[in-house]
Amino acid sequence: MIFDSNSLEGLKFNQDGLIPAVVQSVASNKVLMLAWMNEQSLALTLETRETVFWSRSRQQLWHKGATSGNTQRVVTITKDCDGDTLLVMVDERGPACHTGTETCFDGNASTGEQVS
Amino acid sequence: MIFDSNSLEGLKFNQDGLIPAVVQSVASNKVLMLAWMNEQSLALTLETRETVFWSRSRQQLWHKGATSGNTQRVVTITKDCDGDTLLVMVDERGPACHTGTETCFDGNASTGEQVS
Repeated sequence: MIFDSNSLEGLKFNQDGLIPAVVQSVASNKVLMLAWMNEQSLALTLETRETVFWSRSRQQLWHKGATSGNTQRVVTITKDCDGDTLLVMVDERGPACHTGTETCFDGNASTGEQVS
Repeated sequence: MIFDSNSLEGLKFNQDGLIPAVVQSVASNKVLMLAWMNEQSLALTLETRETVFWSRSRQQLWHKGATSGNTQRVVTITKDCDGDTLLVMVDERGPACHTGTETCFDGNASTGEQVS
């Protein structure tokens, strides 16, 4: 375990005890999804080295891929400059999105057009 | 203006009227930062084609780079599968982070170590 637990000290969780986690693929560099972690899900993520989030809709821990098999192996976790966002680099197994697309940003092609 | 404004209909802003925006560089594919937009800042982003956020700490509109010169030209904006997150691809001018680093995730090297 090379991970330095001190490095995630001082994280700022919001009033609901949550912090946003941007999940990016180490293979494609695509942003796969944004999800939320609380202290417990972050601890489980570090322990299992697979992403575990807090599902705001279901109000429960959410081990990504537990049912679909599309788990995400955690490679690195980095906090941002003010400690209120996490960037989680992962090796993903299968599509990230529950719709079956590689990322949660793939299903809205019309929004992906050139702005200028 | 190729951008289809219909594509951003149905966005889900949170109880504070905000939506998280993940900002990614089209050049490096690095995730530069996560910031928040409200309807007005999103409209200004679309209008000016530069990122405009809502600063939660200052409680005011924040045209990224207005003072530093490190603006971000918007290339695409995509919503995620449930419409509560934006992915903003940008051409960035200068470092994204107020600390002077390329991304807001660069200053915490110890957190970027290999988890496994």
